[in-house]
Amino acid sequence: MSADEQSGYFISFEGGDGAGKSTQSRLLGEWLEQVTGRRVVWTREPGGTELGLVLRQAVLHGDHVDPRTEALLYATDRAHHVASLVRPALERGDVVITDRYLDSSIAYQAGGRTLPVEEIEQLSTWATEGLLPHATVLLDIDPLVGTRRLDAAPDRLERAGDEFHRRTRQAYLERAAQDPARWVVVDASGTVDAIHREIRSAVAERLGLTLPAEA
Amino acid sequence: MSADEQSGYFISFEGGDGAGKSTQSRLLGEWLEQVTGRRVVWTREPGGTELGLVLRQAVLHGDHVDPRTEALLYATDRAHHVASLVRPALERGDVVITDRYLDSSIAYQAGGRTLPVEEIEQLSTWATEGLLPHATVLLDIDPLVGTRRLDAAPDRLERAGDEFHRRTRQAYLERAAQDPARWVVVDASGTVDAIHREIRSAVAERLGLTLPAEA
Repeated sequence: MSADEQSGYFISFEGGDGAGKSTQSRLLGEWLEQVTGRRVVWTREPGGTELGLVLRQAVLHGDHVDPRTEALLYATDRAHHVASLVRPALERGDVVITDRYLDSSIAYQAGGRTLPVEEIEQLSTWATEGLLPHATVLLDIDPLVGTRRLDAAPDRLERAGDEFHRRTRQAYLERAAQDPARWVVVDASGTVDAIHREIRSAVAERLGLTLPAEA
Repeated sequence: MSADEQSGYFISFEGGDGAGKSTQSRLLGEWLEQVTGRRVVWTREPGGTELGLVLRQAVLHGDHVDPRTEALLYATDRAHHVASLVRPALERGDVVITDRYLDSSIAYQAGGRTLPVEEIEQLSTWATEGLLPHATVLLDIDPLVGTRRLDAAPDRLERAGDEFHRRTRQAYLERAAQDPARWVVVDASGTVDAIHREIRSAVAERLGLTLPAEA
């Protein structure tokens, strides 16, 4: 089942940590709530469900987890997230905005280069029965700038090194270039307001929304 | 990597609950320890590792878990079990005896008929990098007899109904018939001692062991 068979709107945010995904997804959701009158559900991966929280702990803070187990933990979280939360919300006609989705697995996997990207994609496609977002917003930023924005203690992925983050960014950009109808690539180094305006007009176009006159 | 590239011996026990897997795997392991001088590692799926225990709880007692999430939970447990416990033990030359392995997923999935068996098999093959046991012992028993032997409170799978268990048994038998070089099918309705003797001679043959004179 593709996103097009649903009656809601499914939007994912992607990018490195510190790129502003939380702020921008909140702003976009509030705006979409206003202009569409639909209910907005904010969620995230990993850890968007109760089971997902258990898996998220295992992924982010687990030691000695081999690459296949790690990939399967993400895929399990994603399968449950889609089946129990995303798909039901879309069927109700809601807007679902997720902080990370399958493109994260693919980009980070490509950054790590431990498993073939095709296998990771195949796993996520199976887990989600092929559900893709109507629009995916990539907040693109130099990894060094993104890391400096973070206050909290770094988790395992955040400590994984600059070269890893550079490869991940490259993987995101390549993936976005392959499917411009779904992806919205935004330079995340601007102001919060400028980035928000760029995202909302690009997303409105992807969703086929008629925009209200600008305030 | 196949089991043949390892220096240890990998043996799985399969069959319904109450068929005697625990008793027979203990007896076989003690005997193999004696005749080969190798260390024996007893383990199980799901839940053979610390992470696996978390996943096992989610699988056996979780409500509202959709079929894909369930299949992925088992595959995650299996990937971690193989990478962190089974493969290292085989590389040390140990005997590894597991209570359930990938054939359980396939047989129980076939019993439930919710997902194609080929997809479940592909998932397990990916998770384990194709590691198959040298010998798989199927303790075959009428599901009604097996259920009556159980003392403990039934978990979710055990409550799933007689028709389910009949289909699972059939799936085991069909799978065993397709690969007689790996499978040892034993009628589990006999005495503990008679079953043990049948298993040990069949397993010794599969492993290419020279047997000591019978006591």
